[in-house]
Amino acid sequence: MLPPSLESAITHLTKLPTIGRRSAERLAFYLMRSPKQQVEELAAALVRMRENLRRCSRCHNITEEDPCPICRDDRRDTKVICVVEEALDAIAIESAGHFRGRYHILGGCLSPLKGVTASDLNFDSLHKRIESESVEELILAMNPSVDGEATAVYMSQRFRPRGVRITRIALGLPMGGTLEHADGQTLHRALEGRRDVE
Amino acid sequence: MLPPSLESAITHLTKLPTIGRRSAERLAFYLMRSPKQQVEELAAALVRMRENLRRCSRCHNITEEDPCPICRDDRRDTKVICVVEEALDAIAIESAGHFRGRYHILGGCLSPLKGVTASDLNFDSLHKRIESESVEELILAMNPSVDGEATAVYMSQRFRPRGVRITRIALGLPMGGTLEHADGQTLHRALEGRRDVE
Repeated sequence: MLPPSLESAITHLTKLPTIGRRSAERLAFYLMRSPKQQVEELAAALVRMRENLRRCSRCHNITEEDPCPICRDDRRDTKVICVVEEALDAIAIESAGHFRGRYHILGGCLSPLKGVTASDLNFDSLHKRIESESVEELILAMNPSVDGEATAVYMSQRFRPRGVRITRIALGLPMGGTLEHADGQTLHRALEGRRDVE
Repeated sequence: MLPPSLESAITHLTKLPTIGRRSAERLAFYLMRSPKQQVEELAAALVRMRENLRRCSRCHNITEEDPCPICRDDRRDTKVICVVEEALDAIAIESAGHFRGRYHILGGCLSPLKGVTASDLNFDSLHKRIESESVEELILAMNPSVDGEATAVYMSQRFRPRGVRITRIALGLPMGGTLEHADGQTLHRALEGRRDVE
């Protein structure tokens, strides 16, 4: 029998994704032996994060202020919106550091299997933005998966009639990837998307 | 650039063992989307655990009260002490549910390589217990490793002259184990420790 407060900490830790009973025990034992201040700071950081973060009412990205810093930044190109599935995807593109437009977080992908339909995703707010922000291009940056492709087709059909250019990020071999180990779909897309060498 | 409160939560999570940057991001994103109450309860459970847990002044096990419930339990055999490396080991034996004596947590094993000497471990307090609790048997339940064996030899030499019986837990094949996959040392110990079939 574990002391109740230890058992309680372990129970709460096992609720986290990828943390099983053994991992939770190991984390709890580690924290038990850590300086009190470290445990308090971790706890406070988690509560503060949950408290402070919200969704940007414009692009649905996570933010501490609404609208988010990217939507408020006048130096960014308002005519181009990069559409992604999740906030993590926008963060990944932002870290790459080349994109100067704005984002729109769909909140997932259309997926008949998972029961995700158009009304579950942030299409209506994108529709409004296209009209109110005089958007000229939508870059579809959903993941290259069956659902991602289906969502791209849906969006193309829905938004192209609004007079906006619809593009899809390139699908092909990743930097450092090898033809030998690439799957057939990727090779097919890489060939299809070939460009003239300058 | 991540919102500061998210970045701070991730930084604190990466300080935990086995949690890298990617895992920390995933945990933080999960918590961000969890009900506020769940995050607050997790944070409170961690702080409460660190606050409440201490070492038993008698056996060095982790406990909320000193002495620990096992040391205070009069129905347990005071004449037998099971010596283990860490509190987790005592918990494992306790969960197995057969041992009715008491424990002594060494806090590790003698290890010249890691610089752990006798003065780093809880030998002196064990020495005192042997005298004050009229202990008759010490069961050495350190892990079957080079350091564990060396510690067993050291303890045997140190405590046998006190007139106490010194035993070592059996080393052999685990339940469900196969001879085919057992290592040579284990097979050697299993043969050496053979017993007459009743």
